[in-house]
Amino acid sequence: MTSIYWHDNAFLPEEEVRISPHDRGYNFGDGIYEVFRVYGGELFEAEAHFERLRLSAEGLKLALPWENDGLHAAMKELVERNALAEGTVYLQISRGTAPRNHLFPADAAPVALAYTREVGRPVQAMDQGISVVTLEDIRWLHCNYKTLNLLANVLAKQEAADRGAADAVLHRSGIVTESSASNVMIVKNGTLITHPADNLILHGVTRAVALRLARAAEIPTEERTFTLDELYAADEAFVTGTTVEITPIVAVDGREVNDGKPGPITRRLQREFAAVIGL
Amino acid sequence: MTSIYWHDNAFLPEEEVRISPHDRGYNFGDGIYEVFRVYGGELFEAEAHFERLRLSAEGLKLALPWENDGLHAAMKELVERNALAEGTVYLQISRGTAPRNHLFPADAAPVALAYTREVGRPVQAMDQGISVVTLEDIRWLHCNYKTLNLLANVLAKQEAADRGAADAVLHRSGIVTESSASNVMIVKNGTLITHPADNLILHGVTRAVALRLARAAEIPTEERTFTLDELYAADEAFVTGTTVEITPIVAVDGREVNDGKPGPITRRLQREFAAVIGL
Repeated sequence: MTSIYWHDNAFLPEEEVRISPHDRGYNFGDGIYEVFRVYGGELFEAEAHFERLRLSAEGLKLALPWENDGLHAAMKELVERNALAEGTVYLQISRGTAPRNHLFPADAAPVALAYTREVGRPVQAMDQGISVVTLEDIRWLHCNYKTLNLLANVLAKQEAADRGAADAVLHRSGIVTESSASNVMIVKNGTLITHPADNLILHGVTRAVALRLARAAEIPTEERTFTLDELYAADEAFVTGTTVEITPIVAVDGREVNDGKPGPITRRLQREFAAVIGL
Repeated sequence: MTSIYWHDNAFLPEEEVRISPHDRGYNFGDGIYEVFRVYGGELFEAEAHFERLRLSAEGLKLALPWENDGLHAAMKELVERNALAEGTVYLQISRGTAPRNHLFPADAAPVALAYTREVGRPVQAMDQGISVVTLEDIRWLHCNYKTLNLLANVLAKQEAADRGAADAVLHRSGIVTESSASNVMIVKNGTLITHPADNLILHGVTRAVALRLARAAEIPTEERTFTLDELYAADEAFVTGTTVEITPIVAVDGREVNDGKPGPITRRLQREFAAVIGL
């Protein structure tokens, strides 16, 4: 079955989707995006994603010609048309197509592109945990906007792979921010600690779910900055993200986190998360 | 006459150029670019642009499948096919087309896109000067790579326009870096001062030309950081860039630079520059 894409407000086969060379997404990375998780044919935490999309759009002064409801309906129809049970929906919106000029175009319509992908849950990584390396966070200062300017993330992820790690945990002068495409949490003496939701990190949907689950389970939480040394000395550590869900970090820069095994609070949150998604 | 583009190693009419929705330039801004000035049908400072393109590619670990000579020949042919006398050539190269994944694709070929545009010299701005506002430089820390991640530049340029200025001069904690798409120079007591060519600014081709012309004219030059206060108190100030050439800054944040008129060293460098391009 050919994949059906959503593009320019229409559903069409993948092969028919063509992007203009003057799409500002192509020349400036001038756009925003969301990746939705689909479990059992349903968009998970859809409202939270649309809310963040709207915040990203506001940050870029990009006027969206769609209401959340309209976008939600289109994404639902996309999932149905592709008969997607478990996977992801990728949605990106650029500022539109116009002759190249840094200034916003006067009358360009935003260009939306969305498609689905069958992706299973990363069960092995969630079970066994991942190794990460730490890298300096060299990104711009609006990491709370989910934009198409992802070069720093791309380079960090590749650098991690080149060093034999699954991901890179980023830090600014020793303060841990997040990883290349997910948020980072540590546990110390029973308390869950993660970077505050400010301009230096993406406000992850799964980050919010994990915090909510922790609070419901009466696990103390602190949204505060923590250092690389605290990460090295953590009792537990994990990343949260739409596709990685809650994945333990078992080694950082070649050193084991605690005994190198996923810890009890991480396991607890994974179980709670599985319950939320109906498993 | 329809415009002829260079895309995927072929010359073709603009209407036939179609970009894949999975081009990494479109999803990540994962690519580099150059804008060349064409005077009298000739690419100005072509070698310097190709050299910088190569440095940008190295910075992004993007292996270019073309030698500089091959690219140069293609750009020359593009200028000829479009019978361009005065204008610009835009060339961008993305890492290629592949299913979306932060990691570099194993076997994607870089996608090149180039086209010409008729653009006259900005004679009025060069003659009368421009007003600028100052904004915090929120970009990433590899501003020396000329990449497709241009959101911060786009937002700065638009913010300047919204405030009635021609451009934004960026600063990090009061240290002037550059403007949204050009380098910034000031003159104080006869000395030309501009930010060092490090990772915080683009190493402008016109910046290098201006420094060369100044040295040939025995104008003292200093490549060192300078502050917003030094900019406000400068005897002269100007921007340098491929399309703006040497354009005086006559007002900063609503305050006149010196007497609000382009200064003698700026004028001298403009004349020297005009001589270099054969005018």
